[in-house]
Amino acid sequence: MSSTSPHRHLLPPSAAVCRSPEAEPTASWVASANAANADFPIANLPLAAMAVRDGGGEDSDEAEARLATVIGDRVVDITMLYEAGWFAQCARNGLSPEAAESLDDGLSHAAAAGMWNAGGLTKSHLRDLRTALQSFLADRPAEDDDERDLRTEALSPLALAQFVRPVTTLNYTDFYASKHHARNVGSMFRPDNPLLPNYTHIPIGYHGRASSVVLSGTPVRRPHGQTRPDEKLPPVFGPCKRLDYELEMGCVIIGGNQLGAPVQIADAPELIMGFCLVNDWSARDMQAWEYQPLGPFLAKNFATSVSPLIVTAEALAPYRVPGPPRDSGDPAPLPYLDGLKDWGLDVVMEVHLRSAAMREKGLSPLRISSGNLREMFWTFPQIIAHHTCNGCNLLDGDLLASGTVSGPTPDSRGCMLELTWQGNGPDGKPLPRKPLTLPTGESRTFLEDGDEVIMTAFAQAPGKPRIGFGSCTGVITP
Amino acid sequence: MSSTSPHRHLLPPSAAVCRSPEAEPTASWVASANAANADFPIANLPLAAMAVRDGGGEDSDEAEARLATVIGDRVVDITMLYEAGWFAQCARNGLSPEAAESLDDGLSHAAAAGMWNAGGLTKSHLRDLRTALQSFLADRPAEDDDERDLRTEALSPLALAQFVRPVTTLNYTDFYASKHHARNVGSMFRPDNPLLPNYTHIPIGYHGRASSVVLSGTPVRRPHGQTRPDEKLPPVFGPCKRLDYELEMGCVIIGGNQLGAPVQIADAPELIMGFCLVNDWSARDMQAWEYQPLGPFLAKNFATSVSPLIVTAEALAPYRVPGPPRDSGDPAPLPYLDGLKDWGLDVVMEVHLRSAAMREKGLSPLRISSGNLREMFWTFPQIIAHHTCNGCNLLDGDLLASGTVSGPTPDSRGCMLELTWQGNGPDGKPLPRKPLTLPTGESRTFLEDGDEVIMTAFAQAPGKPRIGFGSCTGVITP
Repeated sequence: MSSTSPHRHLLPPSAAVCRSPEAEPTASWVASANAANADFPIANLPLAAMAVRDGGGEDSDEAEARLATVIGDRVVDITMLYEAGWFAQCARNGLSPEAAESLDDGLSHAAAAGMWNAGGLTKSHLRDLRTALQSFLADRPAEDDDERDLRTEALSPLALAQFVRPVTTLNYTDFYASKHHARNVGSMFRPDNPLLPNYTHIPIGYHGRASSVVLSGTPVRRPHGQTRPDEKLPPVFGPCKRLDYELEMGCVIIGGNQLGAPVQIADAPELIMGFCLVNDWSARDMQAWEYQPLGPFLAKNFATSVSPLIVTAEALAPYRVPGPPRDSGDPAPLPYLDGLKDWGLDVVMEVHLRSAAMREKGLSPLRISSGNLREMFWTFPQIIAHHTCNGCNLLDGDLLASGTVSGPTPDSRGCMLELTWQGNGPDGKPLPRKPLTLPTGESRTFLEDGDEVIMTAFAQAPGKPRIGFGSCTGVITP
Repeated sequence: MSSTSPHRHLLPPSAAVCRSPEAEPTASWVASANAANADFPIANLPLAAMAVRDGGGEDSDEAEARLATVIGDRVVDITMLYEAGWFAQCARNGLSPEAAESLDDGLSHAAAAGMWNAGGLTKSHLRDLRTALQSFLADRPAEDDDERDLRTEALSPLALAQFVRPVTTLNYTDFYASKHHARNVGSMFRPDNPLLPNYTHIPIGYHGRASSVVLSGTPVRRPHGQTRPDEKLPPVFGPCKRLDYELEMGCVIIGGNQLGAPVQIADAPELIMGFCLVNDWSARDMQAWEYQPLGPFLAKNFATSVSPLIVTAEALAPYRVPGPPRDSGDPAPLPYLDGLKDWGLDVVMEVHLRSAAMREKGLSPLRISSGNLREMFWTFPQIIAHHTCNGCNLLDGDLLASGTVSGPTPDSRGCMLELTWQGNGPDGKPLPRKPLTLPTGESRTFLEDGDEVIMTAFAQAPGKPRIGFGSCTGVITP
């Protein structure tokens, strides 16, 4: 047992004989997790972190970050389970003695920091963590008073949870993995050549800004910047007038790779901690003026919002589907990108919009698009293999985002730039934008101050547990 | 006095009466610093960190990072000065009691971590640090045996110093501030339109990769990646065949700004810790194939080398010159970029090349270019004001690089792509490259395995102290 675990007060010492591996439990003693449409059944268990105020003493105003997961309508204080010795208790948690000891050790830094990429945790640990958490949460009687106490003390209402960033993002890379998005946007700017020649050969990506990645719920200030609304006149400086969201899925890295050591595509899943929602806020007028020749910069780096829950690759395993889709004429991937053809992800991703006037009137957010991650032209293992093929090192906790998730149909377009686009006219020039109409009668071609963008995602299929992602939200402020 | 300073053994308690401010000393008791062509006179004092092995005990194999500076041919262990209480000793170090106490407190985290961006240090602290270090190093007799001991113990030969990264780089942004470079490179790819319309209005930049920023001396592995050497054939995957360096100056940020709080250009110098050399290694064949439409990615992120010494803004103050240069017809900067017109920096920047065969024959590196940072079209205060004008937050220790420093003359071009370029022929297409010839008879249009690139920089003018930057080196490995 680890010598670094500080509190071992709730559970008796580990017994010598451990449980044998079993199939994953499907029901929990947390009743709300067993509802058919629950976002957080025992099969989900996303990784999170939450702020908990100290119960008393001089420092009672200071919040402490603690590891957490969500089940049903409850959050589970994983740090408390760790402190209680749950992960070392192989007699109860379903792990071998070696695995239990390793997990308990591996969690020490993360539990102390209240952050999943504080060091020491491997992909193998995450799998064992899932086993140990499911063992704690499975629908069975508590074995003794200690476990009964732990069930009470470690759980609290999800509705009251104050989530914080589950990982620090040291590096953030944004891809462009939806061919539909690339073709739509290309059609606007290059009607004669919508999809560039490299697109179907190479996963296009660029480095985003890590410092301005913010947690869901953080207000997003409308950025100021240079734009050139009239090509005949000089550029001007002022507030962005074409503010947009981009619906994306983020892949959070665990472990990473050494500089100079590419990750083979077959090994790429071992670097995937899990997935979160990403809103890659975009100032389209600034982007159009600045992006040549080095790519987007200030049009993006004023804020990138991420959802607080990291849905693990293990939870999504039932939703891996053949992929990526290819059109006839698309080339076969080069060998370093050719593999793991079952890493499409069948995840529905939606965007909802609520204006200030809608909030005032008590109206619910309006769903404005619904797409699916399985439409991506490049899978996350391909993205990881590509990102590292030159020796680039990924770090523990790094964020790799998909790029805007847009599908083939108009209602599956993942940003307003595409959603309000009517295509090009006979002269090849874009037709006037077609605004969205809100229930208040307001219309939108881009975001207005006070607008709230709410992104959600879930995986669902007959006979499989529903896996929810929670939400990623942000309100535009002047 | 700070309660966090662990060792206070060398110096007596601070006296009540402190020295009054004086002009900066020009000579040091470290004789090598007083030579006319010394790179590291008492006016320089770059910020560095070095690995020092523990003197004994069980952990004697472990190296500890310590704050350092360089004077003459010696390194100064700043952490030792801190531990000895030098910075709290206002009676000796030239600071007011308040400033001395604040500096001593401010240094605590940095001294403990052996890293300048460990938190707690402000720009004001850096100015006071300069005063306190110059007070320690000025040419005067030691006041007592304690100071004599400190002079002996805290200094060691520069030739033996093992430098480590002086800051962790959480975010790295690369600009494109040389109009000459932009025009040269543009001429190759767009002979009819070499300089894009946005160039003279907006500082073009993009996010580089922070994780692969490495210290000078780290070998650089030739990256593999996708290229398309023949447009009629599909792309191929393999080792880069057009590997290049880019000579750049990096600006290291101190403090930073809050998300949503732009930095006005007049305030931008308060965010400048200092400057280091940057080699933005570039895989030109990969870059050409991948960079549309989102900018350079794998062509850059396999390695970016930085020199170990951060030359402070204060040391370079005598070399601030009017700038930036403007051609007739160039527009006036927009108001948010209009200011501090004395922030051109008169710094000579050179590139030297040594092949493996030259090393075997004992030949010195060949200087292949010499340019000047004052040629940049955008100054660092303009770059900082632009980077933050949308609310983007810069963090303590962030790296902002100039982009390739190229001047108007062929011998001042800061990368091989430009250096071996002969311009375009009558048909508008680039003429064949003109290789460099090395003393061994070898020729180069791009870098070969075994080539060592050595970048150096210095500021020098009659009547002013010479300010050297040290060097930034890297050898290409297969």
